[in-house]
Formats: sequence, structure tokens, C-alpha cells
Amino acid sequence: MPVVTATLTLRTSGNGDTVDLTGDLARAVGESGLMDGVATLFIGGSTAGITTIEFEPGAVGDLQDVFEEIAPQNRDWRHHQRWGDRNGHSHVRSALLGPSLSVPFVSQELTLGTWQQVVLVDFDDRARNREVVVQIIGE
Amino acid sequence: MPVVTATLTLRTSGNGDTVDLTGDLARAVGESGLMDGVATLFIGGSTAGITTIEFEPGAVGDLQDVFEEIAPQNRDWRHHQRWGDRNGHSHVRSALLGPSLSVPFVSQELTLGTWQQVVLVDFDDRARNREVVVQIIGE
Amino acid sequence: MPVVTATLTLRTSGNGDTVDLTGDLARAVGESGLMDGVATLFIGGSTAGITTIEFEPGAVGDLQDVFEEIAPQNRDWRHHQRWGDRNGHSHVRSALLGPSLSVPFVSQELTLGTWQQVVLVDFDDRARNREVVVQIIGE
Repeated sequence: MPVVTATLTLRTSGNGDTVDLTGDLARAVGESGLMDGVATLFIGGSTAGITTIEFEPGAVGDLQDVFEEIAPQNRDWRHHQRWGDRNGHSHVRSALLGPSLSVPFVSQELTLGTWQQVVLVDFDDRARNREVVVQIIGE
Repeated sequence: MPVVTATLTLRTSGNGDTVDLTGDLARAVGESGLMDGVATLFIGGSTAGITTIEFEPGAVGDLQDVFEEIAPQNRDWRHHQRWGDRNGHSHVRSALLGPSLSVPFVSQELTLGTWQQVVLVDFDDRARNREVVVQIIGE
Repeated sequence: MPVVTATLTLRTSGNGDTVDLTGDLARAVGESGLMDGVATLFIGGSTAGITTIEFEPGAVGDLQDVFEEIAPQNRDWRHHQRWGDRNGHSHVRSALLGPSLSVPFVSQELTLGTWQQVVLVDFDDRARNREVVVQIIGE
């Protein structure tokens, strides 16, 4: 079976909450029965993003600090003026980080570095239920 | 047929022009005949990028404002000094945003959020004809 | 054979060293024997990233300058306080740029633009041996 779909469901607190998906991703690849291929993660939604980072509070906080400098929460964003909400910064940060990530696996092992984790960063300004689709293609 | 190639051709005005590709992408996936898989979009060229955003003028303008702050158009870029052109900012913005995006589809439906569109952002300093390759792999 | 794995091994000097992978990538695609598909590059490690850029010293230097402004090397990063090392900026830059890139190929040709090269940017603060996995899926 060359394509296997998994869905990771999670609850975030928003406001930059960064969730380590590595364990769930590895489990989904293992359960796919595929040996070699690529797992494509995708977050449906325009206020979150996916990347990799060394998942420890220092590096995670550093990334948040930089996003606050690049796209501060308390700016009079154009998005606010048009829609009356307060998450303009969330949209900009999400577009910059990107909603998808593709991770190869070889012999059912993700090709991550030792100190590298796959994370969802939820930039929205409130708690959210999220679904990350993992499309696993291989043989 | 596990791999189907589509090409989206478009005309942009450059200077941050942001084009919604979602409809054309959905059509290409539908026409592929594949049910489940991943559509990989790629822009050939080093002065544009692909991401997702809520495609409304506010959020699109906010992203442009942030790029202007990160990589301002009117800087004496090293690229200008070496090549005599004026699009150094375009190259930096393109490298940051990235030229590719991978979107899973399930039962021929893209796994996008309701307010999430796939966009090409053309950072070049002039109008351009662009071709976005969509490589659709699945079953 | 629908999945072919290649590994690109390289030595970088760190500190933003930017290495053109295009030739090795094209060779790997050619040697895969696959005609049409997607090559997914992935750097295992949390202090480097992969993107495309016009590979000339001006544009490459411009990108470095912007990263130095967004995430300066000499900041008292939280990561330093927790781990006692000096590469907090490397982690932030890597998370922003992202560790993976997906490049379609058609009739064994990468769909890159004429002035567009695939590069690894090594943000670490020291020389590194790196392995970039290239997972090639197609037909």
C-alpha cells in the first residue's frame, strides 16, 4: 500500500505553544508498514506552522522571542482593521514558518538528527484543537 | 498512474503580488485521477515563494509589511553591487519563504483549513510570467 | 523501484557557510533511474537549513546579513543560559529556514529556474560534517 494517511489530534494553548510531534510521527510511520519513503506533515489552518527544532525550553523560547520581534502581537495589523479580530501576528508568523514539512524515513526510521524534533507551533491567540495530517508515501 | 505533472501558468505584477493558487491546485488534483497522495508545488525561479495564508487583503498586506521590514527594497544589497540589478530584496525574501510546498489530499480533497489558501508571492521588482509545477504523487 | 535513497555528505565551515547541492542532487536523480517524481532533501540536525537561492556571493551574503539582523549571534539567548553553548542563533535560524525541501523532476530534469540553486546553509558556530538525505519518489 503506497499511501497511508494518519491524523495527529492535539490540544494547544495557542500563543506560541510548541508541541513535540516526533513520537506520534514515528509511531505513524511504524504503523504504516512502509519501509522507505517520505512522511509529509500538514497543518490545516492559517495560524500555526510546522518545523524542526531542538525541543528544549530555551531554544523554543528563543524562537518565540524572534517571532515577537519580527511580527509583534500588539501591532495595529491590517487584518485587525478588516476583520475585527486580534490575531494578525498569528497569520504572518504562520505564513513565514509554513504549514508543511516533509521528513524522509529509511528502514522505518525518521532521518532526524539526535537533537532535532518535529514541532507544531500554534501562533493563534487562544487555545485550539488541531489536526495534523501525516501523509506517508513509500514502499 | 502514480505521478501526474500539472503546470500552473500565471502573470504577476511582481512587487509582492500574491496570487491564490488554491482553485487551480484543487482542479489539478481532481484531474489527476488520484484519490490519496501529496501535491508538491514548486516555483522555478529565485525571486518568488510559495506558502499558505488567509487570502484577504489585510493579512496579505501584513505579510508584505513584515518582509519590507526584514529585507527592505531600498537597501544597498550586495547582490546589486555585484550584478547591477535592483532586486536584492527579492532574492532574500524568496530564500526565506521557500520555493516549495507539499499539500496532502485525501479522497481528492486538499487538507487545507477553511480560511487557508495556497499562494505564490512574487517578490521580483517587475511583472513576470510564472510557471508553478505541481507534482502529484499518490494512488 | 519507486523509492530511491541517496545521501550527500559534505564538510562545511559553519557560521552561515552556504553549499550548492544542485549538481549532486541532479546526479542522484539521474542515477535513481526514475523519470518523474519528487526529490525530498532533508538535513538531520537542528542548526542548518535548506532552501534555494541564486548562488552568487552577493545574494548569499545578503541572506546572511538578514539572518544576523533577525537572530544575532551575540545575544544572550535562552538556549545559552540552559545549555552553556554558544549557538542559540543557529537553532533559531535553522527553525525559521526549515530542514527540508521538495523539488519535482520531470523527464529526469529538476524543475529549477536558470538562476536557482539548492543550498544547505550551515548556521552552526563551528565546522561540521553533514549528511543530507535525498529521498527520491517517482516512476
